Amino acid sequence: MSTDQRIHVTVWGEFRHEKQNPQVAALYPQGMHEAIAAPLRADAGLAVRTATLDEPEHGLSAAVLDQTDVLTWWGHLAHAEVRDEVIARVRTRVLEGMGLIVLHSAHYSKIFRALMGDTCSLKWREANDKERLWNVCPSHPIAAGLGDYFELPTEEMYGEPFGIPTPDELVFISWFTGGEVFRSGATWRRGHGRIFYFRPGHETYPTYHDQNVQRVIHNAVHWARPSVRIRDDAPNVKALESLPADPDAARRHEH
Amino acid sequence: MSTDQRIHVTVWGEFRHEKQNPQVAALYPQGMHEAIAAPLRADAGLAVRTATLDEPEHGLSAAVLDQTDVLTWWGHLAHAEVRDEVIARVRTRVLEGMGLIVLHSAHYSKIFRALMGDTCSLKWREANDKERLWNVCPSHPIAAGLGDYFELPTEEMYGEPFGIPTPDELVFISWFTGGEVFRSGATWRRGHGRIFYFRPGHETYPTYHDQNVQRVIHNAVHWARPSVRIRDDAPNVKALESLPADPDAARRHEH
Amino acid sequence: MSTDQRIHVTVWGEFRHEKQNPQVAALYPQGMHEAIAAPLRADAGLAVRTATLDEPEHGLSAAVLDQTDVLTWWGHLAHAEVRDEVIARVRTRVLEGMGLIVLHSAHYSKIFRALMGDTCSLKWREANDKERLWNVCPSHPIAAGLGDYFELPTEEMYGEPFGIPTPDELVFISWFTGGEVFRSGATWRRGHGRIFYFRPGHETYPTYHDQNVQRVIHNAVHWARPSVRIRDDAPNVKALESLPADPDAARRHEH
Amino acid sequence: MSTDQRIHVTVWGEFRHEKQNPQVAALYPQGMHEAIAAPLRADAGLAVRTATLDEPEHGLSAAVLDQTDVLTWWGHLAHAEVRDEVIARVRTRVLEGMGLIVLHSAHYSKIFRALMGDTCSLKWREANDKERLWNVCPSHPIAAGLGDYFELPTEEMYGEPFGIPTPDELVFISWFTGGEVFRSGATWRRGHGRIFYFRPGHETYPTYHDQNVQRVIHNAVHWARPSVRIRDDAPNVKALESLPADPDAARRHEH
Repeated sequence: MSTDQRIHVTVWGEFRHEKQNPQVAALYPQGMHEAIAAPLRADAGLAVRTATLDEPEHGLSAAVLDQTDVLTWWGHLAHAEVRDEVIARVRTRVLEGMGLIVLHSAHYSKIFRALMGDTCSLKWREANDKERLWNVCPSHPIAAGLGDYFELPTEEMYGEPFGIPTPDELVFISWFTGGEVFRSGATWRRGHGRIFYFRPGHETYPTYHDQNVQRVIHNAVHWARPSVRIRDDAPNVKALESLPADPDAARRHEH
Repeated sequence: MSTDQRIHVTVWGEFRHEKQNPQVAALYPQGMHEAIAAPLRADAGLAVRTATLDEPEHGLSAAVLDQTDVLTWWGHLAHAEVRDEVIARVRTRVLEGMGLIVLHSAHYSKIFRALMGDTCSLKWREANDKERLWNVCPSHPIAAGLGDYFELPTEEMYGEPFGIPTPDELVFISWFTGGEVFRSGATWRRGHGRIFYFRPGHETYPTYHDQNVQRVIHNAVHWARPSVRIRDDAPNVKALESLPADPDAARRHEH
Repeated sequence: MSTDQRIHVTVWGEFRHEKQNPQVAALYPQGMHEAIAAPLRADAGLAVRTATLDEPEHGLSAAVLDQTDVLTWWGHLAHAEVRDEVIARVRTRVLEGMGLIVLHSAHYSKIFRALMGDTCSLKWREANDKERLWNVCPSHPIAAGLGDYFELPTEEMYGEPFGIPTPDELVFISWFTGGEVFRSGATWRRGHGRIFYFRPGHETYPTYHDQNVQRVIHNAVHWARPSVRIRDDAPNVKALESLPADPDAARRHEH
Repeated sequence: MSTDQRIHVTVWGEFRHEKQNPQVAALYPQGMHEAIAAPLRADAGLAVRTATLDEPEHGLSAAVLDQTDVLTWWGHLAHAEVRDEVIARVRTRVLEGMGLIVLHSAHYSKIFRALMGDTCSLKWREANDKERLWNVCPSHPIAAGLGDYFELPTEEMYGEPFGIPTPDELVFISWFTGGEVFRSGATWRRGHGRIFYFRPGHETYPTYHDQNVQRVIHNAVHWARPSVRIRDDAPNVKALESLPADPDAARRHEH
């Protein structure tokens, strides 16, 4: 963990829709990543930076990751352009303890798929659905300060079955006008890192300006902060208790 | 699932130690894969074939996988030699529903790591440990017919922490003479497939000739048989309920 | 397990609404328990009996439970009238291995609450909701033969948060017209027994005549069949390995 | 939660062995509960009181529980003497959000059994075993500051199978000299409360003077602090979305 007491957050954004689609640019003039970062910057306990796809190393150099406690990830159009060596580096950091908040269409990002080991597939529809997120675990830190549910007046629909491993914790289930449901907030551990997937956030809606959405992401950043940093290792260890004499030691070979 | 009623099992073995190490060859003259396959062949409800690393496509052509309900996997020396396109094919089949039984040092196989999304690391020692596997879920089908525990007089030690996602079900925990413990039997679902990891099986011990080990693998093959085969898909779907008129339809764009 | 190969099923019904409410009597002239039992009787692999609240010992004598592999439970009006000694007996049988299928308003039965250790509370509404049950685990045996979802044109609504422990497996999530969601099919193990909660089944609707509902209950009965019967015990055991001499043996006392 | 910022902890002890057994009295002259409380009192962020069986209402009046954020529980000889109305009150507070730390032989306490819904049975032996607790979830807050494992030179043995529901999180697995293993640190949610079971602590050993044991309990108290207090309720709710006109409204009856 970082040497100062703040949680060091890196907000990663693909930052392509904003340059191509005037509607998205109008909603997020500084980019979606800046809209996600802004409310986090209001918390003096967080040190927030952003990084985007078209920066060198996608803004995720070893030095940046080394100083990152929690990474948030939004991507959609250009999952395939994220370089495998950067993904390997992010994956390693998560397994060492870095928190990861996976947002909306990043269900199909290379990093989420690599950590889930599953299809991560879902149904979808861009129409005119209302989304109501039911809080099924009100005592979870990620749900703090939310009531029984909150609503987004218009969002893209994601529907079940969602191709994910059984979550360690299920926090939100969404209801959609068009008739579907979705496990829209869920957590997993991988290695020593904590992962939270949060469904809302389609680029053509003002979702990241919504106070409840901001609150969930803020809660999740605090929840996902690392308590350890442990590098991967598979040590050959000596016995802690005495073993019987080995009648057959000569047959051993190197592992 | 196959058209006849039998469960079609493919037993995959690396088959290298047996050619290089006379001790292993003495224990497993037909190869470890044949020792694993033999007791399964005694069950008329199973149709068993074997496949090994040095066959074309590692013996795992699309046609073979298409006819495989449950795949067992033992590898150790040559994980890196397994070609990525074969792993991708196996992974796809598991996610469609094929069962996968992962044996011993295959904790570090490409296929297990890809499906777990975790380090899969552990402590290890080749010495003179006894392993006692405690049955912590006696009602689980994989534990059927075993008592409270069974023992292997000498085995390689694997110790915690084991870098795996929280198992859906924990079936066995091992005790080792040298002082360690290990989650030695555990299950997960990925996609529509069932996965069982089973710890014992170091090549220099007669582990696959042990009747309890054979029973566990036999039970696991039955447990892991598919009930569905569903190809991965992320469909764009129509609403099942009427949506309000979209005041803003023009702004929609292609996903 | 019973000596013949069939699964011995006892369908328990409160059988009070049917005597008091002509609407319910019209839907279920032989009682809801008989409507639940009828499609099970069509399976030659099942031996089905029924039992109801107003029979001696509620129809659940020690002899009946001794011969029961899977018990289904529907209650609503009269949870408090079920005698505690009968509940204790049922609970003991579940912990020994008997399967238990808990239906609809039995979320508040004494037996379900005793086995969950939780509030089992939920929101509810009797109105005019349609229920759509989404199949979130298509490879689960309880979901076999169902598609992506099935619908009940009118049902009572149950809404989240549902006061249950984290399910071992989540099979169905319901969508309701009025805007709620519910974890409507979920499994747990307790002791050596398997438990399935299944939400639909309000007495004023023809739910137990629905073929999908019948299929789920039929699947669940097969899934919940016991593989062991193990009586509860907390044995004082001898060491399996030699212990160091105890320098302080005199201080030991009886547990 | 309490109005000041401290976590209000009540350490409950049966306090009978200490009065009956000189060996226990010598180890714990102020009682085991005071030995458990002492290191917690050293944390200015905690407000710690104790309560014991032979106080009026076992020291657990409604007023005390109302001011308790986290309750720790040690009992052994006299589980049956704890009055059911006090257990009901404690259970209600846990379901509302109060944390509960269950210690050693309290695996058989009324409160743990009521919240688990399971047998809570285990094997046991009072002999001369060493216990080594392996840390299988190093990133868990309860494991903070512990290494890969810690040891207790002599302890009572508890062995698997342990009759508990699948833990939400498994933190420690114990190795015993005599050949057994045990899931010795595990968490569950019930209602809005967090529960941690921690195995060590037999009365004839100086376990609660061990710094690692003290650290685990201290960590667990912080981990179990409530974030909400929500009273149990099963509200009849109005629809959030418009329902179709009910053609059949007259048939509805009171729930």
